[in-house]
Amino acid sequence: MVITMSLSASAREVSEVIARIRSMGYDVHLSDDKGCTVIGAIGNGRPLDSKQFASLPGVQDVTQSKHPYKIASRDYHPDDIIIPLSGTQVGGPNLTLIAGPCSVESREQTIEIAHAVKEAGATALRGGAFKPRSSPYSFQGMGEEGLKHLAAAREATGLPIVTEVMESQLVPLVCQYADVLQIGTRNMQNYALLHAVGESQYPVLLKRGMSSTIEEWLMSAEYILSHGNMRVMLCERGIRTFETYTRNTFDINAIPVLKHISPLPVIADPSHAVGKSEYVESVSLAAIAAGADGLILEVHADPEHAASDGRQSLRPEQFAALVEKLRQLAPVVGKRVAEPVRAQGSGVRG
Amino acid sequence: MVITMSLSASAREVSEVIARIRSMGYDVHLSDDKGCTVIGAIGNGRPLDSKQFASLPGVQDVTQSKHPYKIASRDYHPDDIIIPLSGTQVGGPNLTLIAGPCSVESREQTIEIAHAVKEAGATALRGGAFKPRSSPYSFQGMGEEGLKHLAAAREATGLPIVTEVMESQLVPLVCQYADVLQIGTRNMQNYALLHAVGESQYPVLLKRGMSSTIEEWLMSAEYILSHGNMRVMLCERGIRTFETYTRNTFDINAIPVLKHISPLPVIADPSHAVGKSEYVESVSLAAIAAGADGLILEVHADPEHAASDGRQSLRPEQFAALVEKLRQLAPVVGKRVAEPVRAQGSGVRG
Amino acid sequence: MVITMSLSASAREVSEVIARIRSMGYDVHLSDDKGCTVIGAIGNGRPLDSKQFASLPGVQDVTQSKHPYKIASRDYHPDDIIIPLSGTQVGGPNLTLIAGPCSVESREQTIEIAHAVKEAGATALRGGAFKPRSSPYSFQGMGEEGLKHLAAAREATGLPIVTEVMESQLVPLVCQYADVLQIGTRNMQNYALLHAVGESQYPVLLKRGMSSTIEEWLMSAEYILSHGNMRVMLCERGIRTFETYTRNTFDINAIPVLKHISPLPVIADPSHAVGKSEYVESVSLAAIAAGADGLILEVHADPEHAASDGRQSLRPEQFAALVEKLRQLAPVVGKRVAEPVRAQGSGVRG
Amino acid sequence: MVITMSLSASAREVSEVIARIRSMGYDVHLSDDKGCTVIGAIGNGRPLDSKQFASLPGVQDVTQSKHPYKIASRDYHPDDIIIPLSGTQVGGPNLTLIAGPCSVESREQTIEIAHAVKEAGATALRGGAFKPRSSPYSFQGMGEEGLKHLAAAREATGLPIVTEVMESQLVPLVCQYADVLQIGTRNMQNYALLHAVGESQYPVLLKRGMSSTIEEWLMSAEYILSHGNMRVMLCERGIRTFETYTRNTFDINAIPVLKHISPLPVIADPSHAVGKSEYVESVSLAAIAAGADGLILEVHADPEHAASDGRQSLRPEQFAALVEKLRQLAPVVGKRVAEPVRAQGSGVRG
Repeated sequence: MVITMSLSASAREVSEVIARIRSMGYDVHLSDDKGCTVIGAIGNGRPLDSKQFASLPGVQDVTQSKHPYKIASRDYHPDDIIIPLSGTQVGGPNLTLIAGPCSVESREQTIEIAHAVKEAGATALRGGAFKPRSSPYSFQGMGEEGLKHLAAAREATGLPIVTEVMESQLVPLVCQYADVLQIGTRNMQNYALLHAVGESQYPVLLKRGMSSTIEEWLMSAEYILSHGNMRVMLCERGIRTFETYTRNTFDINAIPVLKHISPLPVIADPSHAVGKSEYVESVSLAAIAAGADGLILEVHADPEHAASDGRQSLRPEQFAALVEKLRQLAPVVGKRVAEPVRAQGSGVRG
Repeated sequence: MVITMSLSASAREVSEVIARIRSMGYDVHLSDDKGCTVIGAIGNGRPLDSKQFASLPGVQDVTQSKHPYKIASRDYHPDDIIIPLSGTQVGGPNLTLIAGPCSVESREQTIEIAHAVKEAGATALRGGAFKPRSSPYSFQGMGEEGLKHLAAAREATGLPIVTEVMESQLVPLVCQYADVLQIGTRNMQNYALLHAVGESQYPVLLKRGMSSTIEEWLMSAEYILSHGNMRVMLCERGIRTFETYTRNTFDINAIPVLKHISPLPVIADPSHAVGKSEYVESVSLAAIAAGADGLILEVHADPEHAASDGRQSLRPEQFAALVEKLRQLAPVVGKRVAEPVRAQGSGVRG
Repeated sequence: MVITMSLSASAREVSEVIARIRSMGYDVHLSDDKGCTVIGAIGNGRPLDSKQFASLPGVQDVTQSKHPYKIASRDYHPDDIIIPLSGTQVGGPNLTLIAGPCSVESREQTIEIAHAVKEAGATALRGGAFKPRSSPYSFQGMGEEGLKHLAAAREATGLPIVTEVMESQLVPLVCQYADVLQIGTRNMQNYALLHAVGESQYPVLLKRGMSSTIEEWLMSAEYILSHGNMRVMLCERGIRTFETYTRNTFDINAIPVLKHISPLPVIADPSHAVGKSEYVESVSLAAIAAGADGLILEVHADPEHAASDGRQSLRPEQFAALVEKLRQLAPVVGKRVAEPVRAQGSGVRG
Repeated sequence: MVITMSLSASAREVSEVIARIRSMGYDVHLSDDKGCTVIGAIGNGRPLDSKQFASLPGVQDVTQSKHPYKIASRDYHPDDIIIPLSGTQVGGPNLTLIAGPCSVESREQTIEIAHAVKEAGATALRGGAFKPRSSPYSFQGMGEEGLKHLAAAREATGLPIVTEVMESQLVPLVCQYADVLQIGTRNMQNYALLHAVGESQYPVLLKRGMSSTIEEWLMSAEYILSHGNMRVMLCERGIRTFETYTRNTFDINAIPVLKHISPLPVIADPSHAVGKSEYVESVSLAAIAAGADGLILEVHADPEHAASDGRQSLRPEQFAALVEKLRQLAPVVGKRVAEPVRAQGSGVRG
């Protein structure tokens, strides 16, 4: 049960509601929705009777909500949530283009590719320093050294940095270097990590679990949002199905569904969804035509020799050609390709 | 094993190859590829040694092909296959827009919706007279009477008719009225039916089985193509996955994959893929952005009272609005919305 | 809407209900349930108001049923349906063991393997004469000649014959030779075929579609049952999932579910479900432990040289060893391995 | 590339191999396999040439292994791994029965159910103190207080405790109370957690990710094993498929596959796999018939009022009835139901 207090509810009214919930053996979860206190009753899985709360002073709304998520729903935020990012914006009419290598491999590679993707129109740089790998024997990323290379690339180009954080303990470290914290597909239900990035108040790019439903995904967003951190971007990266021709199946349906039910920006990751570079452009155009707010793409100067995921990486010139098509496509769906960051060398954080 | 004879191979050379295959206990399957005889050796599942055939007179190519399909592959038809249809063309730079009700309900309804979709830009009329239904107790379609209504609508508007045929015995009947034979998702591997529509030499719209791989789908196309009927359109209509928010998951990846490996036109069916009308426009735009050659859409004047699938049907004005957006989108991917059929009342067949 | 008339309803009462349904623009579907007439109202997909029928004379029950299937449900047949088959019984406490080659290859092979499986404990012989194959270039079965070999094997051993029929037109031909008509996984929703086998009144082994839900499967059974043919066996043969290590994923859950909701016998097909002979025994034991009424297994004297599916075929001695374990397992779940057919050379049909 | 040094390899030979790998720009991962040093070369994803290592002194074997996992494979441990647990054994001929409530709710409930399941034949007690929940508003478990209740139940009954740990930071805390650390399905690829439980050297019950392949699962086991912690039990708990009638689809095929390729014990979790208590017994019997080494089952004295997962919980008497059937079934597959722990109040840890 979720109780929304009215804007004019007094602190005493709020605490009386809380006390009553606790007296019935439930715990409470507090969050804030546009200034209104939102009280979640957390109990033994047994539903509470909502009627006895509806008439308490200061209570605006009691819901055994039709959706299990709340803050992630347009019911509570009818308008698009727009997230500022280093002078650009994510969401609303803006198309955000996040590009860069799968793994950070060296300082030079990182700065070079950052310049290349920026010139082509990227508004943020992606790159992995901590890499989740199925095998303990595979390259696991450069770690903090990789983060430093990313920061150097930001210094050089002004592009904000999107990079993955894999464990809650590492959130403070990654926050020293990153502008957006990426939660990978394997960690979509790593709740300790979701709490940690929620508390960080940093923008978060939340990838969909490879076999998570749309509802489960929004519930994971809710974990972050419930810390008052509204800067969550949802990232569709393909789901696991019986089809093996492509690496995953990009769930294009999910894009209009999410735009319909949630105010959060939606970013598409065609690189992981198809797994083969020759199909990335088509699926990128499709994602934007379906209403996505941006793309995150793997771009590498030399895909054949990439440390990971070379098979699905675009070359910089392929990325530039795609951006040209996106400039033509964007107006059809009421979007514009965000202007690239102009200030160089400043490294201003969003 | 598949042997392609050279264009200049003599009938005697062909029959000697056939004789040798038969002498080894295999049967043969003959088809034609741009004038070259193609001989498939059909045997007990055991591979034949290809070397002893490669040097026979008249043999151009022997392949234990990397793909199990052959005629459906771009290896054999590098260029797009373009299918003429009542004065329009399917494939190449053309966007084909097939629209109409799920089920034919009456003569008036059919003619009325045909006029409406034609005016909005449709180039063909869809409508079901024989309906595959999970339950024996559900409405199974109007049968031949429904076909007559479709023919009347063609008479009135000039739009060619796309309608489903569910059994091989009914192919001759449906051919009396239809311009394109639709094979439904449940029948993608109904081989008797595939042989029958192959022999008919009518254009075929082959829907993907709801859990068929891309390779299995092309193998089903191969059944039709192997009768020399090259007029096959592949129709992506969503696959079955764990996600239940939408009716199916539209496999957007499949579109660039198919365009890459096969010369056959690809038509998208967003109505069945999402199952809810509010998401049909976005997925339609996405499919075309990804490279599809056209759409098949359910359009109904009164979706709330449709005999079937009303939940996913567009109203005519929604369809018209979508076509407007498609006109803007098409040039971005090198396509054009096909001009509507001008001649009225003539009912010329493609 | 489904109306069940009472046992004592007069013909006139029945026809008045039918007339009223028709007067409202609906068609009717008649079937029989333990002597009661069952009237299905088949209409434009729009629900009928059930109240106005409930009070008509002779009406026992009107249901917008919770299940879309009816005759296939235990609501209507609380007791197990037991199907007589050549002196044995399928269902109830009996374990039915159907064994034989994937494809019939020759008269000798068929008779030899029939003797071998009978000796090991099989109660029926399986073998494919018409083979559904993904590729038009693969061996498609021996056709009628194969059916004759199966009949010869029955003549020699007394084992009844289970063989696939792929098209409605071929039902009369296959009925000349077979004791049980098998519907393959690709044809589970081939409604023309379901009607034809329903009308034949022959026992039917209905394989689950490889991506069909349990409910869709029971609806397909309902197509057959609605012809008054109650001799339907449900065959679980694995579903299609993301896991590629095995050919399919055997849905063990489906077995207790089906036994719970339906009175029809359930036969398991571990050979197709796992696709590798080394795992067949374990999954066979599991299926019986879960409550299945029998097994259908591929057994071949020389799997390496089988015309199809050799990779998943047991050798006769492996099958015999499995039957020994089944004899020990059966009492744990209240079953017994059916006694083999004694009468030889008689070929009595069930 | 994975290099196994011979048993007699000198420390100098080992370090020369390591030095050469590093000199080529790769990192190394060291583990131990029955006394032999195993060196994994971890690099930029590019394969190393194995030939130049095969002839170095002290090298026994160089493999670009056919499996990506190594220690988890029977290639390296042909015999079953048997894990001692509080006087009982997991694996080999033993059937391990882990039973208890989904969530720990109180000290009394925990001790009461522990006595009940022990009496019925359980050899370990399960119970969740930290609960992974899709919703931040759901009951998240009692935390450390719950662990204390579990320890009290062990004190009272002697049953070892199996309980979930959700974050790497909590491993030391949970180790203070638990005998077996459970990794939940959502955390199967939480690599920080896998490393932490590997280092703990505690027995681990590793649940399969709900959409993980068998290979990915074994790779996650490898993360734990590579810390020299061989006490890993694999737990099949159902995979996510299109079927919604049951909560998940129990992958029965996975059991013989795992027993074939890996020496690790396999435990089945039918409760989560089917999600409805009426089907738990059948799937439990099936899992053991297929070769599983044990079961983990949700048992609750009052399922209707359980804090979580009541719908799938057995009552103690249902669990006792199941154990009776298991005693009959076990000999058929060469197993025995492990004798219950006799010593009471001692709380000896495994």
